[in-house]
Amino acid sequence: MEQVPRTDDIDAGYCLRFLREVRDVAFATTDEAGLPAVRIIDVMMVEGGRLYFVAARGKAFYADVMRTRFVAIVGQSPDFRTCRLRGAVEHPDDEVEQHRLVDRIFELNPSMQELYPGDSRYVLEAFYLQDAQGEYFDLSGTPIVRVPFALGSAREAVAGFVITDRCVGCGTCAEACPEQCIATGSPYEIAQVHCLRCGRCAEVCPHDAIERRS
Amino acid sequence: MEQVPRTDDIDAGYCLRFLREVRDVAFATTDEAGLPAVRIIDVMMVEGGRLYFVAARGKAFYADVMRTRFVAIVGQSPDFRTCRLRGAVEHPDDEVEQHRLVDRIFELNPSMQELYPGDSRYVLEAFYLQDAQGEYFDLSGTPIVRVPFALGSAREAVAGFVITDRCVGCGTCAEACPEQCIATGSPYEIAQVHCLRCGRCAEVCPHDAIERRS
Repeated sequence: MEQVPRTDDIDAGYCLRFLREVRDVAFATTDEAGLPAVRIIDVMMVEGGRLYFVAARGKAFYADVMRTRFVAIVGQSPDFRTCRLRGAVEHPDDEVEQHRLVDRIFELNPSMQELYPGDSRYVLEAFYLQDAQGEYFDLSGTPIVRVPFALGSAREAVAGFVITDRCVGCGTCAEACPEQCIATGSPYEIAQVHCLRCGRCAEVCPHDAIERRS
Repeated sequence: MEQVPRTDDIDAGYCLRFLREVRDVAFATTDEAGLPAVRIIDVMMVEGGRLYFVAARGKAFYADVMRTRFVAIVGQSPDFRTCRLRGAVEHPDDEVEQHRLVDRIFELNPSMQELYPGDSRYVLEAFYLQDAQGEYFDLSGTPIVRVPFALGSAREAVAGFVITDRCVGCGTCAEACPEQCIATGSPYEIAQVHCLRCGRCAEVCPHDAIERRS
C-alpha cells in the first residue's frame, strides 16, 4: 500500500489509486425487490478519473447494474483504512468499444485470463464510475480521520452533525464526545474530520442545539 | 484464518466463524431514496447461530437498518475466499437487554473501548442476523468453488443456470464454459459448485436449452 497520506493530501485521485490498490472491493446494488445485495468485485482499472469494473452478462450483479445504473462501493486496506464511493454507473454500449476495454483490462490484470480463457472474456462487459461522492476513512488512529471527496462533476456529500446558534456553551457535548472532537466557541464546533457521527452530542445537548445534516 | 475446508464441510456454522474471523465486513443497505449504501462494519460476536453487529444511533447506517431491517454483507479473507449473507435484521428493543449485549460485545472486542470510552458505548445498539441466505465463494483456485448455505429458518437461495430437457447434447456449452464445469449427459449438467454464473453457456446454446434461475 501507499503510505498513509497527510489529511490535506487526500483527494479523489488518491482515493481512486487506493481503491485500485485494494482491488478486491465490495460493490453494493439494489435488486429487483429493492433489497440490498453486495459482493466482492475487482477494481480493474483507474484511468482518466474513472474507476472501471467488469461484470459477466449472466450475473445478478450485471442485471442490477444495468437496471439501476448505480453502485456503492467500499474497499479496505490491510491497515484498516477505507474508501467509499457512490454514484452513477456508465456503460459504453458500443460492442467494439466494449471489446477494446475488456482487452485493455485483461492486459492490466493478467490473472483474468485464467478465469476467462480465450474468447470467453467477451461475456464480460466494462462499466465505469465517473461522477460519484466518496469518503476516505481511517479508524486505526486516535482521533479517527474522515475526508469527503467527489469524483467528476459530483459534489462532496454533506452529512454529520452541526452545532447551531442555539448553543449556550455549556460544554455538555464536548464532555460526552467519545472522540473529543468538539471545540469551545460560540457556538461550539465539531471537527468534522475527526467525527464518528455517532450522534451522542445531539442526544446529550440540553438545548437541542445540535442537528443532523444529510 | 482457519484452514481452507473441504467443500462438504462448508456450512452455516463454518461461514459464521469465517465472517467473525474476517471481522471487518462490508454491510450494504438501501437508503431512503432506495439507493444502495455500503460501509465496513465489524462482526462483533457470533453466538447461538446469530451474527451480531452494532450501530451508533447517529449514523445513516443505523437509520437504514431501523427502517428496512435488512442487510447484505460480504467478507473476504486475506487468501481471497469470501462469504456473503443476506437477511432480516433483528433488533432487541429492550434497553436492559441492549446494554447487556453492548457490554458483552465490548468484553469480546476490547478495542471498542478506545473508540467509545466510558458510558459513550451506549450510543451503540446491537443487532443480529438470524435467518439469512448465504454463499461461500473461493475464486482463488481452479475450478472456483461456491457453496450456498442458509442460517436459521431461511432456505438456501436457488440461483445460477440449469440445462433443460431441450438439450440435444451438441456440446457447444461445455466447450464454451470458461470453468469447464459442464458434464456430458442427457441433458448436459452444470456443476453448480464450480459455476461462475457468467451465462456464456446460455448465450452460445444453439437450442436455447439453458435457463437462468433466480
